[in-house]
Amino acid sequence: MSTARYDYIEVSKALNMLAEQARLSIDAVELDIESSIGFIAAENVFSPIDLPPFDRSAVDGYAVCSEVVSSASPNNPVPLKLISYSDKLPSCDYAVQISTGVRMPLGADAVVMLEDAYREGDTVYILRSVPKYGNVSRKGEDIKEGEIVIEKGAIIRPVHVAVLSALGITRIKVFRKVRIGLVSTGSEVMPPQQGIEVYKKGMILDSTAILLRSALSMFRFIEVNWYGFVKDCEEEIKSVAEKALKENDIVIFTGGTGPGNTDKTFKAVSSISNDLKILSRGLAIRPGRPTTILVINGKPVFLLSGFPVAAYIALHEIVLRFIYTALGIKEQPLIEVPVRLSKRVFGSVGYDTYIRAKVTKCGDELCAEPLFLHGSGVLRSLLEANSLIVVPRNVEGYEKGERIWVKLL
Amino acid sequence: MSTARYDYIEVSKALNMLAEQARLSIDAVELDIESSIGFIAAENVFSPIDLPPFDRSAVDGYAVCSEVVSSASPNNPVPLKLISYSDKLPSCDYAVQISTGVRMPLGADAVVMLEDAYREGDTVYILRSVPKYGNVSRKGEDIKEGEIVIEKGAIIRPVHVAVLSALGITRIKVFRKVRIGLVSTGSEVMPPQQGIEVYKKGMILDSTAILLRSALSMFRFIEVNWYGFVKDCEEEIKSVAEKALKENDIVIFTGGTGPGNTDKTFKAVSSISNDLKILSRGLAIRPGRPTTILVINGKPVFLLSGFPVAAYIALHEIVLRFIYTALGIKEQPLIEVPVRLSKRVFGSVGYDTYIRAKVTKCGDELCAEPLFLHGSGVLRSLLEANSLIVVPRNVEGYEKGERIWVKLL
Repeated sequence: MSTARYDYIEVSKALNMLAEQARLSIDAVELDIESSIGFIAAENVFSPIDLPPFDRSAVDGYAVCSEVVSSASPNNPVPLKLISYSDKLPSCDYAVQISTGVRMPLGADAVVMLEDAYREGDTVYILRSVPKYGNVSRKGEDIKEGEIVIEKGAIIRPVHVAVLSALGITRIKVFRKVRIGLVSTGSEVMPPQQGIEVYKKGMILDSTAILLRSALSMFRFIEVNWYGFVKDCEEEIKSVAEKALKENDIVIFTGGTGPGNTDKTFKAVSSISNDLKILSRGLAIRPGRPTTILVINGKPVFLLSGFPVAAYIALHEIVLRFIYTALGIKEQPLIEVPVRLSKRVFGSVGYDTYIRAKVTKCGDELCAEPLFLHGSGVLRSLLEANSLIVVPRNVEGYEKGERIWVKLL
Repeated sequence: MSTARYDYIEVSKALNMLAEQARLSIDAVELDIESSIGFIAAENVFSPIDLPPFDRSAVDGYAVCSEVVSSASPNNPVPLKLISYSDKLPSCDYAVQISTGVRMPLGADAVVMLEDAYREGDTVYILRSVPKYGNVSRKGEDIKEGEIVIEKGAIIRPVHVAVLSALGITRIKVFRKVRIGLVSTGSEVMPPQQGIEVYKKGMILDSTAILLRSALSMFRFIEVNWYGFVKDCEEEIKSVAEKALKENDIVIFTGGTGPGNTDKTFKAVSSISNDLKILSRGLAIRPGRPTTILVINGKPVFLLSGFPVAAYIALHEIVLRFIYTALGIKEQPLIEVPVRLSKRVFGSVGYDTYIRAKVTKCGDELCAEPLFLHGSGVLRSLLEANSLIVVPRNVEGYEKGERIWVKLL
């Protein structure tokens, strides 16, 4: 009897086991700030200064003593002696011309905007009162010296880079790219260059490996190393697995995870080292059930389904979530939003069920339309979907009109 | 009197004028599918075949005639003669061994899963009935021949690439990168390499240009060309403007947009050609008000604020939305989600007001906490924010607890 029985474990349990038993040793490297976008901060970054570093004008105008213009109005213009920019106000009888961002002259405590005054020769008539510190950016009001501006584990965004630049910090320590080796197994899988004729010969053009490769390429902190299409030959798979494991932090295989006679991947991969832990031979998720998780020589090895949707979901729910946890990344790989469900959906007893859905605006909320396209090989469901509904294993389903959370793709 | 009066126009009006008067002539180029991610499809792509191209097994198992196993159960196993894979079922007395993804043998109309049968020699005992087409992926059920798989204007995602691969399509026509020239003006702005000492000399380290450059670098369909920091010298600005306009589809200046005496950018830029249209000398948005929009030689030129937050908002609300419309991109640059407001916010009469906010999960919905950090130069507000609340010009504000839409950053 060639039947195989798997133990389907929960995602959270698999993630816990991975956190305990697998290693992700990623060194920190220093990058130029502009090249660091999308990388993960490997340390807290503190501000070396107050920003602004001094009180400065927030507008183009006239620096004055606020108290002497307190009664100013169009009907009661207050005349002041005007001088061009200087770092000191001679006395409260004067106004100093000042541009946006420029340091406040000593003695001045507010700035009157250009349009609230008019000039006649060396005199400026103030037409409007201004409170103390009006139109002034106070020292440290933006960022204080010693304050954390980037937390370890943050994915660097453009605004981080802007802040670092303003603080004169031109390099930052980030984790080097996580190296993921990707191998496609299955003698029937061909690269797209082979053309649609291969279908007539009972073979198929790849969509799974290219989907995983492309999806991983969206993360700048990941480097994908592609080991090509390997035939269903134990020796060949073993030799590629050895190489990939040596050269990467994580290895992903797609295909060859089913219980069929041609499933040689598990056997081949699990034979490359005695330092082998089998964490799961199946996950309690649908699609994505035939997901095998191994730890070999301390490194995680994932045997994902050969079907694109199943592999894609396992990639997000296991591989990426493992990386996010291991590196202390302070977000989740997919953003969650609340939606109103437009049709009833059912789960699958014992499994977290992932239903692809299309989220759109409807009135004052978001609605999710589940795409009832079955089969983990169905690519169209991913084309139309922009989100995933997850029905947890202990939930029967969700009713039409129910408010639930979905993960945005 | 050096006071300047601007006409602040609405964003939608500015976008309409741009759509009418500015040109964005972007050629299509052909790229390898894997390199096309993040680019914009320049044509509809149709499927050349049905996918699956034939009925195929969705599981590992035994291909059978469904009607002969209709009474099968563990108590009533149905014996069939087993043969290894063949493209034809000799008769309904037979079962053909079949792997996932393999073409169904002629005469078989369903597949019994491995675990629902057991073998004894050349006989397989079926333990469970299976409906017609059970465990079979029907020809064309995923994608039909002639169906559009990628629409013109779509931003290419990993799943598009996977579908193209499965269809044997290895190259795709996309719009070449939109070239954006970026110039920073203002003699006081220094690159971060100059270090924090410049603040003591009354100068500032750049945060705006690097923010715009970094933000634009997130879009793979955009190429940013950086023209450096230009002093407040009309001749110099003019010469850089001429070069940038020649070499790009769009030019952005930051700084030099205020009404101050040192504002030479507008004068310099508007003098480079007689083919000049001044669409706006101010936008009815806050921050972002000092946004000048010109069309020179048919190309859009944006003079954005020198303040990072103001420039960043104008970049998203005007520059990017213009590009999205001009190229027919079928999304918006920022995703909108509904939230519950945790504090009252006020708009500004006559202006669309952008309030930075932090969106978090709270109970079964998302909540937005407005960050009351004033000043368009305040970088910290962007560090903490992950979204923007927009209070339209004709709305006074929103109440605490009100449900509103925010744009995710």
